[in-house]
Amino acid sequence: MLINCVAYVDGRKLADIPVVDISDYVARDDAFVWVALRDASPGELKVMQEEFGLHELAVEDAGRGQQRPKIEEYGDSLFIVVKMLELREGEELHVGEVDIFVGPNYVLSNRSNSTQDFLGVRARAEREPHLLQQGAGFVLYALMDAVVDRYFPIIDALEMELEKIEERIFIHGSQRDNIERLYDLKRKVMQVRHAVVPLLEAIGKLHGGRVPSVCRNTQEYFRDVHDHLLRISTALDTMRETIGTAIQVNLSMVALEEGEVNKRLAAWAAIFAVLTAFAGIWGMNFKHMPELDWRFGYPAALTLMAVVCGSLYRRFKKAGWL
Amino acid sequence: MLINCVAYVDGRKLADIPVVDISDYVARDDAFVWVALRDASPGELKVMQEEFGLHELAVEDAGRGQQRPKIEEYGDSLFIVVKMLELREGEELHVGEVDIFVGPNYVLSNRSNSTQDFLGVRARAEREPHLLQQGAGFVLYALMDAVVDRYFPIIDALEMELEKIEERIFIHGSQRDNIERLYDLKRKVMQVRHAVVPLLEAIGKLHGGRVPSVCRNTQEYFRDVHDHLLRISTALDTMRETIGTAIQVNLSMVALEEGEVNKRLAAWAAIFAVLTAFAGIWGMNFKHMPELDWRFGYPAALTLMAVVCGSLYRRFKKAGWL
Amino acid sequence: MLINCVAYVDGRKLADIPVVDISDYVARDDAFVWVALRDASPGELKVMQEEFGLHELAVEDAGRGQQRPKIEEYGDSLFIVVKMLELREGEELHVGEVDIFVGPNYVLSNRSNSTQDFLGVRARAEREPHLLQQGAGFVLYALMDAVVDRYFPIIDALEMELEKIEERIFIHGSQRDNIERLYDLKRKVMQVRHAVVPLLEAIGKLHGGRVPSVCRNTQEYFRDVHDHLLRISTALDTMRETIGTAIQVNLSMVALEEGEVNKRLAAWAAIFAVLTAFAGIWGMNFKHMPELDWRFGYPAALTLMAVVCGSLYRRFKKAGWL
Amino acid sequence: MLINCVAYVDGRKLADIPVVDISDYVARDDAFVWVALRDASPGELKVMQEEFGLHELAVEDAGRGQQRPKIEEYGDSLFIVVKMLELREGEELHVGEVDIFVGPNYVLSNRSNSTQDFLGVRARAEREPHLLQQGAGFVLYALMDAVVDRYFPIIDALEMELEKIEERIFIHGSQRDNIERLYDLKRKVMQVRHAVVPLLEAIGKLHGGRVPSVCRNTQEYFRDVHDHLLRISTALDTMRETIGTAIQVNLSMVALEEGEVNKRLAAWAAIFAVLTAFAGIWGMNFKHMPELDWRFGYPAALTLMAVVCGSLYRRFKKAGWL
Amino acid sequence: MLINCVAYVDGRKLADIPVVDISDYVARDDAFVWVALRDASPGELKVMQEEFGLHELAVEDAGRGQQRPKIEEYGDSLFIVVKMLELREGEELHVGEVDIFVGPNYVLSNRSNSTQDFLGVRARAEREPHLLQQGAGFVLYALMDAVVDRYFPIIDALEMELEKIEERIFIHGSQRDNIERLYDLKRKVMQVRHAVVPLLEAIGKLHGGRVPSVCRNTQEYFRDVHDHLLRISTALDTMRETIGTAIQVNLSMVALEEGEVNKRLAAWAAIFAVLTAFAGIWGMNFKHMPELDWRFGYPAALTLMAVVCGSLYRRFKKAGWL
Repeated sequence: MLINCVAYVDGRKLADIPVVDISDYVARDDAFVWVALRDASPGELKVMQEEFGLHELAVEDAGRGQQRPKIEEYGDSLFIVVKMLELREGEELHVGEVDIFVGPNYVLSNRSNSTQDFLGVRARAEREPHLLQQGAGFVLYALMDAVVDRYFPIIDALEMELEKIEERIFIHGSQRDNIERLYDLKRKVMQVRHAVVPLLEAIGKLHGGRVPSVCRNTQEYFRDVHDHLLRISTALDTMRETIGTAIQVNLSMVALEEGEVNKRLAAWAAIFAVLTAFAGIWGMNFKHMPELDWRFGYPAALTLMAVVCGSLYRRFKKAGWL
Repeated sequence: MLINCVAYVDGRKLADIPVVDISDYVARDDAFVWVALRDASPGELKVMQEEFGLHELAVEDAGRGQQRPKIEEYGDSLFIVVKMLELREGEELHVGEVDIFVGPNYVLSNRSNSTQDFLGVRARAEREPHLLQQGAGFVLYALMDAVVDRYFPIIDALEMELEKIEERIFIHGSQRDNIERLYDLKRKVMQVRHAVVPLLEAIGKLHGGRVPSVCRNTQEYFRDVHDHLLRISTALDTMRETIGTAIQVNLSMVALEEGEVNKRLAAWAAIFAVLTAFAGIWGMNFKHMPELDWRFGYPAALTLMAVVCGSLYRRFKKAGWL
Repeated sequence: MLINCVAYVDGRKLADIPVVDISDYVARDDAFVWVALRDASPGELKVMQEEFGLHELAVEDAGRGQQRPKIEEYGDSLFIVVKMLELREGEELHVGEVDIFVGPNYVLSNRSNSTQDFLGVRARAEREPHLLQQGAGFVLYALMDAVVDRYFPIIDALEMELEKIEERIFIHGSQRDNIERLYDLKRKVMQVRHAVVPLLEAIGKLHGGRVPSVCRNTQEYFRDVHDHLLRISTALDTMRETIGTAIQVNLSMVALEEGEVNKRLAAWAAIFAVLTAFAGIWGMNFKHMPELDWRFGYPAALTLMAVVCGSLYRRFKKAGWL
Repeated sequence: MLINCVAYVDGRKLADIPVVDISDYVARDDAFVWVALRDASPGELKVMQEEFGLHELAVEDAGRGQQRPKIEEYGDSLFIVVKMLELREGEELHVGEVDIFVGPNYVLSNRSNSTQDFLGVRARAEREPHLLQQGAGFVLYALMDAVVDRYFPIIDALEMELEKIEERIFIHGSQRDNIERLYDLKRKVMQVRHAVVPLLEAIGKLHGGRVPSVCRNTQEYFRDVHDHLLRISTALDTMRETIGTAIQVNLSMVALEEGEVNKRLAAWAAIFAVLTAFAGIWGMNFKHMPELDWRFGYPAALTLMAVVCGSLYRRFKKAGWL
Repeated sequence: MLINCVAYVDGRKLADIPVVDISDYVARDDAFVWVALRDASPGELKVMQEEFGLHELAVEDAGRGQQRPKIEEYGDSLFIVVKMLELREGEELHVGEVDIFVGPNYVLSNRSNSTQDFLGVRARAEREPHLLQQGAGFVLYALMDAVVDRYFPIIDALEMELEKIEERIFIHGSQRDNIERLYDLKRKVMQVRHAVVPLLEAIGKLHGGRVPSVCRNTQEYFRDVHDHLLRISTALDTMRETIGTAIQVNLSMVALEEGEVNKRLAAWAAIFAVLTAFAGIWGMNFKHMPELDWRFGYPAALTLMAVVCGSLYRRFKKAGWL
């Protein structure tokens, strides 16, 4: 679906142009064309391929979707795949994709499976013509910056979830719940990593060293995006390691709690075993058991049992078993 | 076994040629020879070695089979080993191999231990002569692309198996089954990795940097295959890590379940120990135990026992032990 | 908040200058300006940006805070982010930040969220004019050296905590406490790593190889800071690995202690089960049980029970179960 | 001990020569000397050092033995250390060593602690003079190829052992045996790794990039050996990872089996506790317990007990506890 | 404390010289000065700094001690820090340090916290003047070689300790002891690694590639030391991995032993529960229990009990539970 198709001259909007005129504007040295698509159909991509002269393999990738984040050079143009992440209701992580084609004087973006749009990016760019004048590289930066900035709240949400689990990690009886949540969190961290790490590697090629010509005068901006991604990736690595440790610690806690239950079991079993043993002894049928005939034999026996069991109880209590 | 032996001129099929004529066509500048073998015998390989002038070590490797995936340069020709993967009935993973010799104007492939053929690749190539005109590099790309594309359904099957296990990972009583399936899945992931990772490294040398001359004008195609392999390898790494975590989590679940059984054991043991202790006390043979002579002593005793055990039962139920 | 704003000539303090004069002094070849801010407001940063001609992206980063430690080149000036660490009361680790802008003849530092100041650095520098004469690179070194030197006591405190845990790791009954402390320590080690590792990488670019011009004649000093950071990072890696091992060992200890409790339980259960079985036998109601009629049957039975249980007790004691 | 000392001209054996003549033949441009030693004494090494003009440090290393596999350049000659592996009876892994000195027109090998000889290598080389004509590099290749080819059956034996363990990993009651065998296998894998990994690194320098002059025209052969070592090293890495997983899985199996024993214990304990409780109740001495006076009270009681215990048994059986 | 201060000419000892004359000899082209200190005071270091013209930062590091092993270039001189390891009585690992300053014609070493001296190195060097003639680089090699050679017996001792633990790893009841020893061994391995790994990296810069001028003609000697360190570091890595596996295996053994105790407990509990249940049944007070009146009822009952318990015992014995 076409969202915008605008030609700019000198950083200022010239007009919304029809798709068929794109190639004319792209051919002009002074013009700059910026097209935004959403969930483009194969047909729409085909038209764009012809108007912009895009490389067949890049268009094929864009058509298929489900690419890894990447930045590929085709001659003097670039093909970029970036993942868009959303935490939807029920805390499920949703992964969309933007495919961006960048040439010397055009930018074509196609957003799939995502509710996040880039209208704000275009509006800001149109408000500040001196920025747009910097050309395609700057628009690419603005789009990527917008995508990457939306990663931060997701990282924050994951870190908050981890902190919540950590608060409960040493609490009795929460081990089963914790392990389920840790496993689920781990899965989300891995999903976000898939969006971040390949992009981090790819974007490293847009600053320092040999840089594709369209991005040459915006290197410092891309270094900034790179730096944001580095921060995110460090946070993810830390979460990954912390989750690993937490899973191990959780296992120790399970074992510790089981040990405590065993101790309690042992203690009560001992108390009742003593009781039963005493009762068994006085239940024997020997003829000559003088205490059985005593007037207060029975209360005395009950008292003795109570005293012995009580002292055992106190002892176990003291040892922390009960 | 010889499958095809065809000479092409200008991207169009000239004729099926006899094996002994191969060297004549290879010697011609304008011709291009494409030969396909299946489970070639040493004798067949020997003939091919002579006709194409292949390097002794490459032919030796092809004859022995069971090579690692690799791409080796011998002068201006290449020797490529790629693994073919099939998930056969009973979910067993079957590993075959294609050995490909590529020279400036020939391609020779030998497929072993695999039911997957490349007839479709040849048919498509013959339908589009402008592709075949790009020469040996393009045919090599088409073959490798066909092999790598067949990796995706296998990855999907493995991921689906992992998801199935994950759905059952927190379910009571499935731990033994899960651990067996995780171990089996891990083994398959490792097998696929052996097919993918060395190939990934090798194919990295066919685009960017110094590229063998036969592949020079098809670099972007090989980058595409490389990108597919990268996606597969990332998926494998994720599965590997997830399986590791799942095994750890499974151990925690085993310990948790054991703990629950212990608690239930402790609870029932306590209830019956109490019952037995009471019975033991009233089974003692003291002369003076007034309650024994009461009219309703027995029913009262049974009631008391029932009340005590019932309240213990409720308490344990509440604590989640029963 | 402005703390100091001083101009120097030939390594000697010229005067405290007003902020608006900064650009005049920076324009002079012979002058050197050193400004220190604390928790600067966006307005203050804006003024500094204009006076020093700082790069927009660097100022943005400084304004936002929470950056990774890094060293970025903008033309012939540098933007440096360094973390300041403090162990506050209650052993909580507090993380502050210094942002430093360095140009050919100026240094501007902005410290946030930290109680540690750099007055000592300035005082020492002013006492030794020959050092200040080395210019901006030396001041940068002095500031970074001051920050990094303050990492050492924190590492020492963490190592001491680890040693304390290690002393208790094989002691009965301290497993729960140990695992909590290990987890907490691990978290602190990770936090310190986040301050150290990126800085280590960044500072590696200030000596050897291509070095930014402001730091060129102080390379050996930066190598020294680099070396300190390497030592810290090695210590952190060791702690990380040791904590991992300690967590594993702790799990073994939990299992061992549980095993000991189980053994003790088994032993006492055996003793009382024997007692109860004997009592049960002589409690049977058979008519002809000659021992029941013996004069000393009862004491003999008690003695037998005591002997059997006593010998069991000794045996278990010897086996280390009791 | 000297085994062979032969001079070759034009790839053909000239004569067995005495040791003292070696230096004369080495000085001739057209001759090639190939000497084989076994467990050479310091004295023999000394003589060889003088005849061939070997470097002191290399001879020292060869004398000491127990080196890491390595390839060192000394001017235009090479010093190579390779490990020889044998699986001797009782499945113990035995590690021997060959030290090879290679110069432009000589090869000197010294084999220690190994029963494997290289007579076959020399015989084959002498049968095919055109190979020997390729000079010292080819002989070095032939020796290394012979050593590395003997690694394969060892890898196969280790993999077979691993498969045997894997077949038993989920079988009841084999956990103790499995863990011992896994640990032992791990040790062997590590030993083989020590022979393989450093050699892999070293041999990488004999093909591609800057290659020592003696090996320059046999690069493709060394790439072949390198490829064999890569295959072995991949197999070792897989085994290492698989053993690690198997040890973890084994722990889970131990815990699972223990859990099953616990469940069975709980079940039988419950059945007998119920039996004992019933018996205890009818063993109480209350005056008025009407059922005790019934004609068929006793058989009825036994029947009730049998019914209750039987239904418990069925229930536990169904739950898989018994 | 000054140990030696000697000037050499042409590899031969000229004289013990007073400290104040050092600078005169260092200024001479033909002389070579070799000074050895032990636990030098700041004052002594100050004097040396002046006499040799050492770099301030290097002297500072030497004065502070507790450096990482490293090799730093200051102009055409080197500053080297190497750790000295000793296994003192009680098997405690003691870590000392040697700081070495090397210039074109001088070597200054300062040994701290160590009982190991270098008198043998100097003696050997003085006996063989042709070695000393090679200059400062050779002396540096000789010192480092002496230090590194003393690492080997420590590695041997650690490996022997590991082997001792391994022998006991599958033995009943040694798990607690093993885990303590493994943890302690791990700590020592980490300490030795700290001495070895940074040195390994540093010494890699003294051969191959760009080498500091003082070491240029002794590269092969440093490669030899490098090779020794590689061997040590491989041994340490193997130990580290083996200890990790052993800790895991130990946990499995703990679980296995616990399982065995549980089984034994279950078995004995079952036997006595059966006994008690029988006794309980015949202890019931039913009027009509014909067997109670039999002449040989009691002995028959005891016999029945013995038979049942005996057969249970045999069964458990067979199952390996007892």
